Amino acid sequence: MSKSENEINVTFPDQSVRVFEKGVTGLDIARSISEGLARNVLAAKVDGEVWDATRPIHQDVSISLLTWNDKEGKSTFWHSSAHLLAEALEVLYPGIKFGIGPPIEHGFYYDVDFGDRTLEGAELEKIETKMVELARQKNEYIRREISKDEAVSYYQNKGDEYKLDLLERLQDGTITFYRQGAFTDLCRGPHIPHTGFVKAVKLLNIAGAYWRGDENNKMLTRIYGITFPKAKELQEYLHMLEEARKRDHRKLGRELELFTFSEKVGMGLPLWLPKGTLLRERLVSFLKKEQDHSGYQQVITPHIGHKALYETSGHYEKYGKDSFQPIATPHEGEEFLLKPMNCPHHCEIYKSKPRSYKDLPVRYAEFGTVYRYEQSGELHGLTRVRGFTQDDAHIFCRQDQVKEEFIKVIDLVLYVFKALGFEDYTAQVSLRDPDNMGKYIGEAEAWNKAEAAIIEAAAEKGLQTVTELGEAAFYGPKLDFMVQDALGRSWQLGTIQVDYQLPARFELEYTGADNQKHRPVMIHRAPFGSLERFVAVLIEHCAGNFPLWLAPEQLVILPISEKFASYAARVKSLLGDHGISGEIDNRDEKIGRKIRDAEVKKIPFMVIVGEKEQEKNELSLRKHGEGDIGSFKLDDFVSYFQGIIRESLNK
Amino acid sequence: MSKSENEINVTFPDQSVRVFEKGVTGLDIARSISEGLARNVLAAKVDGEVWDATRPIHQDVSISLLTWNDKEGKSTFWHSSAHLLAEALEVLYPGIKFGIGPPIEHGFYYDVDFGDRTLEGAELEKIETKMVELARQKNEYIRREISKDEAVSYYQNKGDEYKLDLLERLQDGTITFYRQGAFTDLCRGPHIPHTGFVKAVKLLNIAGAYWRGDENNKMLTRIYGITFPKAKELQEYLHMLEEARKRDHRKLGRELELFTFSEKVGMGLPLWLPKGTLLRERLVSFLKKEQDHSGYQQVITPHIGHKALYETSGHYEKYGKDSFQPIATPHEGEEFLLKPMNCPHHCEIYKSKPRSYKDLPVRYAEFGTVYRYEQSGELHGLTRVRGFTQDDAHIFCRQDQVKEEFIKVIDLVLYVFKALGFEDYTAQVSLRDPDNMGKYIGEAEAWNKAEAAIIEAAAEKGLQTVTELGEAAFYGPKLDFMVQDALGRSWQLGTIQVDYQLPARFELEYTGADNQKHRPVMIHRAPFGSLERFVAVLIEHCAGNFPLWLAPEQLVILPISEKFASYAARVKSLLGDHGISGEIDNRDEKIGRKIRDAEVKKIPFMVIVGEKEQEKNELSLRKHGEGDIGSFKLDDFVSYFQGIIRESLNK
Repeated sequence: MSKSENEINVTFPDQSVRVFEKGVTGLDIARSISEGLARNVLAAKVDGEVWDATRPIHQDVSISLLTWNDKEGKSTFWHSSAHLLAEALEVLYPGIKFGIGPPIEHGFYYDVDFGDRTLEGAELEKIETKMVELARQKNEYIRREISKDEAVSYYQNKGDEYKLDLLERLQDGTITFYRQGAFTDLCRGPHIPHTGFVKAVKLLNIAGAYWRGDENNKMLTRIYGITFPKAKELQEYLHMLEEARKRDHRKLGRELELFTFSEKVGMGLPLWLPKGTLLRERLVSFLKKEQDHSGYQQVITPHIGHKALYETSGHYEKYGKDSFQPIATPHEGEEFLLKPMNCPHHCEIYKSKPRSYKDLPVRYAEFGTVYRYEQSGELHGLTRVRGFTQDDAHIFCRQDQVKEEFIKVIDLVLYVFKALGFEDYTAQVSLRDPDNMGKYIGEAEAWNKAEAAIIEAAAEKGLQTVTELGEAAFYGPKLDFMVQDALGRSWQLGTIQVDYQLPARFELEYTGADNQKHRPVMIHRAPFGSLERFVAVLIEHCAGNFPLWLAPEQLVILPISEKFASYAARVKSLLGDHGISGEIDNRDEKIGRKIRDAEVKKIPFMVIVGEKEQEKNELSLRKHGEGDIGSFKLDDFVSYFQGIIRESLNK
Repeated sequence: MSKSENEINVTFPDQSVRVFEKGVTGLDIARSISEGLARNVLAAKVDGEVWDATRPIHQDVSISLLTWNDKEGKSTFWHSSAHLLAEALEVLYPGIKFGIGPPIEHGFYYDVDFGDRTLEGAELEKIETKMVELARQKNEYIRREISKDEAVSYYQNKGDEYKLDLLERLQDGTITFYRQGAFTDLCRGPHIPHTGFVKAVKLLNIAGAYWRGDENNKMLTRIYGITFPKAKELQEYLHMLEEARKRDHRKLGRELELFTFSEKVGMGLPLWLPKGTLLRERLVSFLKKEQDHSGYQQVITPHIGHKALYETSGHYEKYGKDSFQPIATPHEGEEFLLKPMNCPHHCEIYKSKPRSYKDLPVRYAEFGTVYRYEQSGELHGLTRVRGFTQDDAHIFCRQDQVKEEFIKVIDLVLYVFKALGFEDYTAQVSLRDPDNMGKYIGEAEAWNKAEAAIIEAAAEKGLQTVTELGEAAFYGPKLDFMVQDALGRSWQLGTIQVDYQLPARFELEYTGADNQKHRPVMIHRAPFGSLERFVAVLIEHCAGNFPLWLAPEQLVILPISEKFASYAARVKSLLGDHGISGEIDNRDEKIGRKIRDAEVKKIPFMVIVGEKEQEKNELSLRKHGEGDIGSFKLDDFVSYFQGIIRESLNK
């Protein structure tokens, strides 16, 4: 495109190119398109880097304009909101000192040193009001490049040792300050054009956080908040939070009596109660059955292994110091470790006999419980624990079988997602970093083939994928599944990884058609990831209303009075003959109370039996959350019930 | 009975009393009954103590005459045989020194210091010959009470430091020597009348054994042997040993690919291979299903717990020093232990909510893997391991429910034994020691009730029981099942124990009908004991020919040639529709070879498919160990197959 010396070419995401004057800003460009866009532009991505929308551009660039709909747009918005929080705090609590204030996945926080003062939860509202007031002033975020000396001197005057600590690690020439209104912050940016974009503010909670995460440092006050460009969005978000609180698997796990923890046993070590165990075992049999069909073989291995085993596998070197420490024996000077992974054990099983190319693939599956130390502060219900059971399997195959095995595993993962009601997922393909090919082990040719195999397999299965260069493990490329739950939250569930390292470290072999020794490829895979985490996600996804086939209590029989106890018992026994089990609520309570209690326990079906039912030899049925669904002959109910399960589980 | 001053009353086991002259011996008494008996008397039980049959009796006594049919008769016989071995060794290797030479469960051994010499296996035959030669001399075993000084001087002359070491610990006045032929031994006896009773001798093997079992002492040569009063019995015994060798679960476990061990993982930590896992999982589902019917609830608990948990339970105090050592964490200074038992975890689950008398009994079952350190020299296949899975359950009940719960558990145990083909068993009831009632915890009244409950429950179920006073654990009485396997060997499988201790240590409670707090009784029970040990016993009991329902490979389909591969596949699929799974042996081998291989793998059924079968749409069936059983229509075979399983599993 022809342009003068004072002009630059700007390339848009659709590859169209337009000419602008040098010094044009993202905001100018937006305005040249439409006023509406200009009102919504939060930042601009310039040659792959996120810039302030108000920062002048002096050379040919590619650009995309970021709004609230872009992840990086939101992130910029929340980063600017953290500055707004700090501004409000400085107005309300003069003399306080600031740590860091980054955006996070949902919102932002700022770490603040309030000196001897303790911030009370009740004060948050006052701060919110001040933030809204400052936002209405539409103060611009003004970027300024500054020398290190000047920056140091600014914070020495202000007396903020945290910012000085941060500055110490920065190089002269790269330092910027941002100012909005009366507040200045050391910050590399970028920021939104002005505070007026922030229309709704909620400060969510207060926590303690050591400066730089080091427990030897002072504990600062961390204030979490979230902001939105529209009041309605904040309402929706708070509603979602409330819903998430209701669905919190720790709360439901307790209410539905699925699992518990005991301080005496140890935090992060779940005790599965009878109903939770039933649910977990249903999940396990479900997957085992599918794995049987797919040619997996179950194995069982111990929960400990010689330290030497993990030295061979490399796990000790990598995790040993930060995990559970070695277990000594009273004699013989042996040292064992709690197993952090099942793969070394499976490698030893593979090695237990000679293998031929005709024997491959060998697929060893184990619901193996592993133990990994986490700091107690990091523990969270079933999602972050110290012991968990992986639905683990290791496929030992030839290089030419990698693609087919990947396809089979993808089939299995998708079947699992479908049967459990996860309909919204994407897959991430993690490949090598093309700029740093030296850091990967295994031959380049094998990698090329494996990466191609994964990409082809994902394409053949029609997966919606995101490819991430540089995200491969050093030992092989992988495919991870990201699942959206009913609240729109994203969870990484299900992983398939190629591994060139362990077969080498364990010197695994097979005899090829050429009668020579070859090294098999190993594929690690876990559709659930861990049973604990998966159950946690599932509870929150379905709010404890499990699919019928999985529900620990599928139905309850409610006699209207004790007169119908024997009919209830007959119904129970007849249903039992069809493999449908349910308890009888024989308590001396009114039927209304029994129904309410069954609803609270989220039992899918309530079978009500009274005079009418007994006479007609029928059942009156209620469905959880739906109410009365009418009268059924026993056989009809059995068909109906089994039909629902079949529909969930059939491919 | 009237008698003179020179006479004594002798009471026989049937309570009849006869008068003998003072100084009469057991042998004299036997002779007074019959010459035949006299020829067979090995020793006499006099007032509960085993005496030489030749030792004079000077006062009124109860007596029973011991022969080869009595356990104590055998034991005396083998003890005397150990002396015979020593005599033969002293003739053949003059100057050797002797440690101890006791009888054992099957035979005897003698520990010998051969000086610089090493005894070779090839020399055993020569020793056996010498033993037989000395036996034929019918040398009497002559008892002599001797002073300690005299005994010490004898062994100082002889230069045997081991006997001197033994003597050091003995008190003067209680020391006896026994001599037969030219050999004298320090020994408290008793012995058989003369060496002539020993008609058949077999020295079985040679091992090393530290003097007094202390690795700081010298290692002596331990020679194991067995002897019999008839040559035929030796032949039968050697045949049984040979059969046991063939059935050795370590050998069959390897051949049938059930389990393996890896030095890298650690000895005593079994790795269950696919077929072993299938077998184990069938056992587990079988028991789970029965437990479901019997009102058990499955739970799952972690394999570690805080050290404090085991301090509460008392396990740490009792086992801590000699077991796997505590597991430290990298931060927070916590200490965990590998769980040696599941009970503390189940107590914590019981405590997780308030309990009412109406909720009891609560029965928590878990196939819980526990870890207990054993010295590597003690490890043996699956029978002595460092990690094993108990089919554990804990019943929390009221005192008035103990008997009913015991009956239910006995029912379950007997059902398990029947389904697995163990038809020969006895039960041992272990009660308090009436002479030492102080050492038991819990109230005497509760103990009285529990002991009565166990005895009544066992009687009601028609169990053949042995009652052992003083064999109760300090925390409660128990019932153990002893099972005879196909080779007549006895195994302790299945245990039911009452426990008053853990409910107290964990302060377990329930609210009674009186609205007061009460302490529940806890019953520990495990029908299999441990899956590992049970599978080992089962393998040896059935020589790897598992009951059909349990066999990891129930059938194999053998196409006569590749022409019938597709018919074989159709058969496989049709059988699969009936839940009968089997692989196809598609190897390019002759049918005879395929049959032989299937026999070696002990696969219960071989389904042969060829031209005739395909035409007639039939299957030709072979049964393992039986051969051809004829042609079946598919449906007929399915009925036949399912019938066998139903018969095994139906009560």
